[in-house]
Amino acid sequence: MKALRYETGKLVVAETAKPQSAGEALVRVLLSGICNTDVEIVRGYAGFEGTIGHEFVGVVESAPDESVIGRRVVGEINAGCGHCALCAGGDARHCPNRTVLGIHGRDGAHAEFLRLPVVNLLPVPDDVPDERAVFCEPLAAACGITERVQVEKETRVAVIGDGKLGLLCAQALSLSSQRVLLIGKHPEKLRIAGARGIETATLDQARGREREFDVAVEASGAESGFALALQLLRPRGVLVLKSTFHGTTPVDAARIVVDEISVVGSRCGRFAPALDLLLTGAVDVESLISEEYRLADGVRAMKRVTERGVLKVLLRP
Amino acid sequence: MKALRYETGKLVVAETAKPQSAGEALVRVLLSGICNTDVEIVRGYAGFEGTIGHEFVGVVESAPDESVIGRRVVGEINAGCGHCALCAGGDARHCPNRTVLGIHGRDGAHAEFLRLPVVNLLPVPDDVPDERAVFCEPLAAACGITERVQVEKETRVAVIGDGKLGLLCAQALSLSSQRVLLIGKHPEKLRIAGARGIETATLDQARGREREFDVAVEASGAESGFALALQLLRPRGVLVLKSTFHGTTPVDAARIVVDEISVVGSRCGRFAPALDLLLTGAVDVESLISEEYRLADGVRAMKRVTERGVLKVLLRP
Repeated sequence: MKALRYETGKLVVAETAKPQSAGEALVRVLLSGICNTDVEIVRGYAGFEGTIGHEFVGVVESAPDESVIGRRVVGEINAGCGHCALCAGGDARHCPNRTVLGIHGRDGAHAEFLRLPVVNLLPVPDDVPDERAVFCEPLAAACGITERVQVEKETRVAVIGDGKLGLLCAQALSLSSQRVLLIGKHPEKLRIAGARGIETATLDQARGREREFDVAVEASGAESGFALALQLLRPRGVLVLKSTFHGTTPVDAARIVVDEISVVGSRCGRFAPALDLLLTGAVDVESLISEEYRLADGVRAMKRVTERGVLKVLLRP
Repeated sequence: MKALRYETGKLVVAETAKPQSAGEALVRVLLSGICNTDVEIVRGYAGFEGTIGHEFVGVVESAPDESVIGRRVVGEINAGCGHCALCAGGDARHCPNRTVLGIHGRDGAHAEFLRLPVVNLLPVPDDVPDERAVFCEPLAAACGITERVQVEKETRVAVIGDGKLGLLCAQALSLSSQRVLLIGKHPEKLRIAGARGIETATLDQARGREREFDVAVEASGAESGFALALQLLRPRGVLVLKSTFHGTTPVDAARIVVDEISVVGSRCGRFAPALDLLLTGAVDVESLISEEYRLADGVRAMKRVTERGVLKVLLRP
């Protein structure tokens, strides 16, 4: 089968063996989405080699549990060891021995087939088209913020970064708070949030609003985004770190101490609530789709996704 | 009067005017303590110029409220503007227009006299000698951790840094948790905590305990302390930042995101509970006193405090 692989420092579309299911489900991928984490992996983040990609919708081809065969599914990307204290407590997402689809120890979703434990799969309702379902993982990650930080109707929230992650975070958070501001530098991207009734600001406009926010979400992946988040927060505010990237970030630790800021890391989220939002259309994901490529053109698609103005790029096997 | 001042890049003991009380209390300093923040200020932290020092015990010489005159007092170092929303809400510690004794906009405690609003002062019970009372501010800061993070009997807490701040934090936290580990590199300092029944470890011993702790307190002021704290924490653990220092720290933000760590800044704490602990002797501060200098020898004392093995250095006007 074809797969988009990062190996020995090179990104290639390669012919490779169909993954062995070994007690897991084999899923035929219908559509996969390129995440910035994929781009970071090709820059060396996480030290991963293999098939990249972790956002997908597919159909179960084979599985130990026959009832799921033929079902259209999305899948939680963390596969726990099943034995440790965290897995026993239901938190496979933080299992120290976990594998992570296309990120750590497990081939990913930019391929014709992938495998995952049956327990990771969630059936997709017929009314959710593939082009929406493929957003389940990043939308779950956006919704995961409220697993970590309390966001209420009057909570003043700034989301920094108008990329696909920022747009999902702003939309997800605006379901809890009426006071979400999305900050970015691309008018055409900010307009997507604006169309959903979310207030937007350019970086220059945002800088005038120092210490005004209870929560600031760093979703730009840039060092300057972290610094701006610190500026925008009131004392004892909460800075949510969403982006993963390669390397270290210089941080003004004194500001964190003096203003008693909390910096809260947030990675994944639960799939079921995200799937509900995709079903009801409470979050607009279609507007985030920039282009679709054939999997065979995966290398070109990965280049395209880093270009200015581009949001979600999908791959179809 | 004499004062230890940092001015135009130089630290000097200078003859200077007695501070004007302008509606505030004038306090004759009996004893002041040198904090690492004083050392950082002389390295450029906070951009402060003037009389340094913020840990003291003294006697009120004059005040608008005559009932406090002659009382022996310690003092909360943050003086709010009294008008803003934070001050109105009782949180002068985070007032954006606050002055801070010996740190920001207000001459400090390494002097014969200082001034503070009467509301900042707390009378010291007769049974608390000056040598203990002078620890009220740093002990309050140590106790302040539990204003920010829940610490219970079974919470696994690692305190990194066996300096005076780390020793106070370890002792304060061991009043809440039975599972506090103090990590440092000075056997003679670790012994002070050991004598209070607190488990201690060298850096090498600590490195073997990855992901074992619910809470890690960075009290070493070193970059390596931050990195070690991240190593020691379980997923979703809490890293408490206590030290303030000049400049930025390179931080592995991806680790914070992937393990969903919370980094919580903690600066000051309430004085009253700390004063209670000093009265009952629940925390040993006397063992932390290394030396006492005359204020006139303040420059030498400031040099001495940075030398290996030295803990608290006191100044007597």
